[in-house]
Amino acid sequence: MATQHHDPTTDSTAGPVTGDSLAHYLRSQATEFLRALRLHRETGAGAGGSEESVEAARALRRSARRISGSLHTFQPLLDSDWSEAMRPELAWVSGTLAMEHAYAARLERLLAALHRLSGSGALPAPPTGAAVGGRAVSGDAGPPAHPAATGERGNLTVGAVKAGALLERQLTLARTRAHSAALQALGSSRFHAVADKVALLASEVPLTRPASAADLRPLAAAARERLADAVAALPLLTAGSPYNAEALVHGLSPDPSPHPQDTPWHQVRLLLRLHRYACEVVLGDDEPVDLRLLAAGQALDRHRDASEAAAAAAQAARTPRIAPATAYALGVLHADQRHEVEAARYAFQRCWQKERQKEGEAVSTR
Amino acid sequence: MATQHHDPTTDSTAGPVTGDSLAHYLRSQATEFLRALRLHRETGAGAGGSEESVEAARALRRSARRISGSLHTFQPLLDSDWSEAMRPELAWVSGTLAMEHAYAARLERLLAALHRLSGSGALPAPPTGAAVGGRAVSGDAGPPAHPAATGERGNLTVGAVKAGALLERQLTLARTRAHSAALQALGSSRFHAVADKVALLASEVPLTRPASAADLRPLAAAARERLADAVAALPLLTAGSPYNAEALVHGLSPDPSPHPQDTPWHQVRLLLRLHRYACEVVLGDDEPVDLRLLAAGQALDRHRDASEAAAAAAQAARTPRIAPATAYALGVLHADQRHEVEAARYAFQRCWQKERQKEGEAVSTR
Repeated sequence: MATQHHDPTTDSTAGPVTGDSLAHYLRSQATEFLRALRLHRETGAGAGGSEESVEAARALRRSARRISGSLHTFQPLLDSDWSEAMRPELAWVSGTLAMEHAYAARLERLLAALHRLSGSGALPAPPTGAAVGGRAVSGDAGPPAHPAATGERGNLTVGAVKAGALLERQLTLARTRAHSAALQALGSSRFHAVADKVALLASEVPLTRPASAADLRPLAAAARERLADAVAALPLLTAGSPYNAEALVHGLSPDPSPHPQDTPWHQVRLLLRLHRYACEVVLGDDEPVDLRLLAAGQALDRHRDASEAAAAAAQAARTPRIAPATAYALGVLHADQRHEVEAARYAFQRCWQKERQKEGEAVSTR
Repeated sequence: MATQHHDPTTDSTAGPVTGDSLAHYLRSQATEFLRALRLHRETGAGAGGSEESVEAARALRRSARRISGSLHTFQPLLDSDWSEAMRPELAWVSGTLAMEHAYAARLERLLAALHRLSGSGALPAPPTGAAVGGRAVSGDAGPPAHPAATGERGNLTVGAVKAGALLERQLTLARTRAHSAALQALGSSRFHAVADKVALLASEVPLTRPASAADLRPLAAAARERLADAVAALPLLTAGSPYNAEALVHGLSPDPSPHPQDTPWHQVRLLLRLHRYACEVVLGDDEPVDLRLLAAGQALDRHRDASEAAAAAAQAARTPRIAPATAYALGVLHADQRHEVEAARYAFQRCWQKERQKEGEAVSTR
């Protein structure tokens, strides 16, 4: 029980965790970054990208975030000039690489929702296939009397079909632009400078002189505190009461940025990530991070994704000269995604409650 | 505890409940019907109606439903020719009188939702006031620079304002027609025949010969069984899991009657009402019906209202030549009301679960 449920940032019954553990973690993340970069170059980078190059970009982002996050949490133990120069560059790399994936995932989420809302059990065709408008998808005998009534679009209303096509056009364009921007970034001298620094990090971590013997746990605990404070400021009581209708409260607001209510949740998502990376550093390679922490993080990822998908649907509805049926479908879609936002908050509240219970149990069994 | 928590339809520890109790109940409901009818005639019946005439119509419906329901549940104890002739006529009266109120309530619900979705805390103006388009609502100093940005519409987008106006036009028209139909019905010879029969009922209830000594409880228990069977067929497991997204699953379906999933819930609503009236008969005047039963009924009323409001929003969106912004707002509104449907199912599931727990406790304490 105790090894399953302890908090690695405060549990002093385990052996000491020093700067050497941080150095080990940063070296292995830097190695991972370089491996992913090599893989990304080898697998090519055509538009859309092969499965391997998508996976390589994901691994690049993953290690860039972990290095950057650890630099932040354990800053006092690292050479400050080096770390202050390094962090924004890593954030730029992971941010730039994230955009293409984000647009693709957003489109996939919205098309899946359109199908779900049409009572169609079938999953939508992948974006590239769906873009081929006139393709004969149906294998039924005889020519279809009405093209829109056959194939994968057979269960969609005209509005849903048009809304899907509009979103596909807009998000595919955004994705293509993000892809070019990422390629340009990866070929830039700015990126090469980052890669060189990461290569150096893989062999030597610029710890301060006393760091290698210093205890990491107070700094990790401080990251956890920042998370706890931010969570305490969330409206968790409301979030834990199902169907509170909070997330859609500005669904028709004339305010162009109608969802400032999402911001503190996005902030908690980032702080939870920093806490998780700090746990990884402290736990080392042997012990996995608590599954409930991962589940809470996934709820917040879903919150962010649904929030941005809802905004994309609202944005698409502002396209000039669209048909009323298209706008109606986008309105339903927007509201659906805002309810996903609310559902994600509920899920996070449940995870977090379990986290607190777990802590309570851990304290009472000591 | 025991008197609070017993089930009146099966509890044999109380004294006998015979046909005389049914006769007493029917006489008092018939008296109530006649009183409400007199009040309705005295308070006049202009379009919209005074508060008293609305209240009188509500009381008429209330007693008509109770007489009709009791005739159904306790049919074997009553003269069958009389009761078979009476029931459809009472259903016609309460159905005809209900329409005007239903349209008014639907409009109020949808306008309130539009305001809520616009992040505006203010309640909408009453339908009659809102119909006066150019009226200066704002008391602020100086002439408004932009009419749409002031007064009660200040917090609504153009789409929400237009959607509200469209719904108001359509539902006010429907309401006016329902009002005329109700007035015509109340003046018809068909209605006078019903009123005469109810007047007779107020003095003499046509019980069968053995009924006055017969136990009512087996018939009341049978009504409860019919309810329990119908509830058992509901997808309560899904309903009890928040944010299951079931209610909106046909939100964009091309099927013109996209919500057959609501039908069993509407059916349970009617059976719950019959059960409640049977409890009233058996309990007599002294003991009120269990509050949790009322709460379950309210959840199902909310389910029905939200279901019909969602359909009205979808219907309004099919109006030719509306602006995309209007259609978008109606899409958001439709989805919002379908989530209200889902929330009402969740609320019902919770009430029902408590009902079952209560029964379990009652059994274990006996």
